[in-house]
Amino acid sequence: MKIFFQHIQVSTRNRTELIDITRDVEQVMQKSKITDGMCLIHTTHSTTAIIVNEHETGLTNDIVKKIRQDFPKGAGWLHDRVDDNADAHLAASYLGPTSIFPVQDGMLIRGTWQNIFLLELDGPRNRRVIVEIMGE
Amino acid sequence: MKIFFQHIQVSTRNRTELIDITRDVEQVMQKSKITDGMCLIHTTHSTTAIIVNEHETGLTNDIVKKIRQDFPKGAGWLHDRVDDNADAHLAASYLGPTSIFPVQDGMLIRGTWQNIFLLELDGPRNRRVIVEIMGE
Amino acid sequence: MKIFFQHIQVSTRNRTELIDITRDVEQVMQKSKITDGMCLIHTTHSTTAIIVNEHETGLTNDIVKKIRQDFPKGAGWLHDRVDDNADAHLAASYLGPTSIFPVQDGMLIRGTWQNIFLLELDGPRNRRVIVEIMGE
Repeated sequence: MKIFFQHIQVSTRNRTELIDITRDVEQVMQKSKITDGMCLIHTTHSTTAIIVNEHETGLTNDIVKKIRQDFPKGAGWLHDRVDDNADAHLAASYLGPTSIFPVQDGMLIRGTWQNIFLLELDGPRNRRVIVEIMGE
Repeated sequence: MKIFFQHIQVSTRNRTELIDITRDVEQVMQKSKITDGMCLIHTTHSTTAIIVNEHETGLTNDIVKKIRQDFPKGAGWLHDRVDDNADAHLAASYLGPTSIFPVQDGMLIRGTWQNIFLLELDGPRNRRVIVEIMGE
Repeated sequence: MKIFFQHIQVSTRNRTELIDITRDVEQVMQKSKITDGMCLIHTTHSTTAIIVNEHETGLTNDIVKKIRQDFPKGAGWLHDRVDDNADAHLAASYLGPTSIFPVQDGMLIRGTWQNIFLLELDGPRNRRVIVEIMGE
């Protein structure tokens, strides 16, 4: 049994933004030399999430727009009295900090239109995503 | 350490639909002969998701209705200019392609009212769900 | 390879409520004596979910308020004819029964503001959360 960890550093530029980290995750996969198992992608921040979907510019803009609509900033949240980003925490709570993929023959099992994104909800900031691969 | 993979083929009949795949997943479990570990259920499509909840006909209809309300078709999304299914991608982004269950004594640890569903968001289509069991 | 299971018992007091179970999960971690691997937190009920975010009282109240807004009780759901809690099942379907964390050096890899909560959606009740740690 092998377990391999690596961080991905991401610098975000906007308050709400999707950053494609698929290539970074797959580079960690190759370095791990694990052929079969599971690959966990986990963001350690409470105002980010991991999203899996198609990398098409229209769609990534739609996702950002939808999240801003569903989790509006400054809508009278109590947490805004402490730190003015309740909307970001609410979206992160709904969407979750983690995604996990099957790994077979040294590759993530993912569909052609399944890219992996860090969703920034309170940027711009420097963010850290953990990739862990466990298997053999 | 053992790792077992199998696909489940699902043919969906409606645009938005829940298909109960619990029995299929449990058959893969039995074939794997793994007694303790984790069972990952992953759909490789970006217009489907995995949902875990009770199999009661009223409820599955409620879930479909709620998803259509929350992710309306043709609401001016940019991705609709490329492929007329942005609503399906948005719902899949929120709900996620994966569920993972603990496995103990050769069984999924799941509650009496926890069934596993493939959520079709842009059917009818032929879909593929990967089941991976890792453990011993 | 080691696999360790333990239940956490939670008694909830309100219909909708967040219960911080981070300390309980970390106690299971320590008992497991597993240093590297993955930690799966799974609720076996279809009217609860697992949420990961900051433990700040304003924010936990905001999350409860947002869920009640997004999944209103008694909004004409079919499942309410069977059991008067369709809103709870809908929220649980969206938010999911599971979270999984990387484990390194005997600790969960989690951010400073990433606490683990059981989300009660149809309390008060006695609830059971499974913690499984797999690794070495």
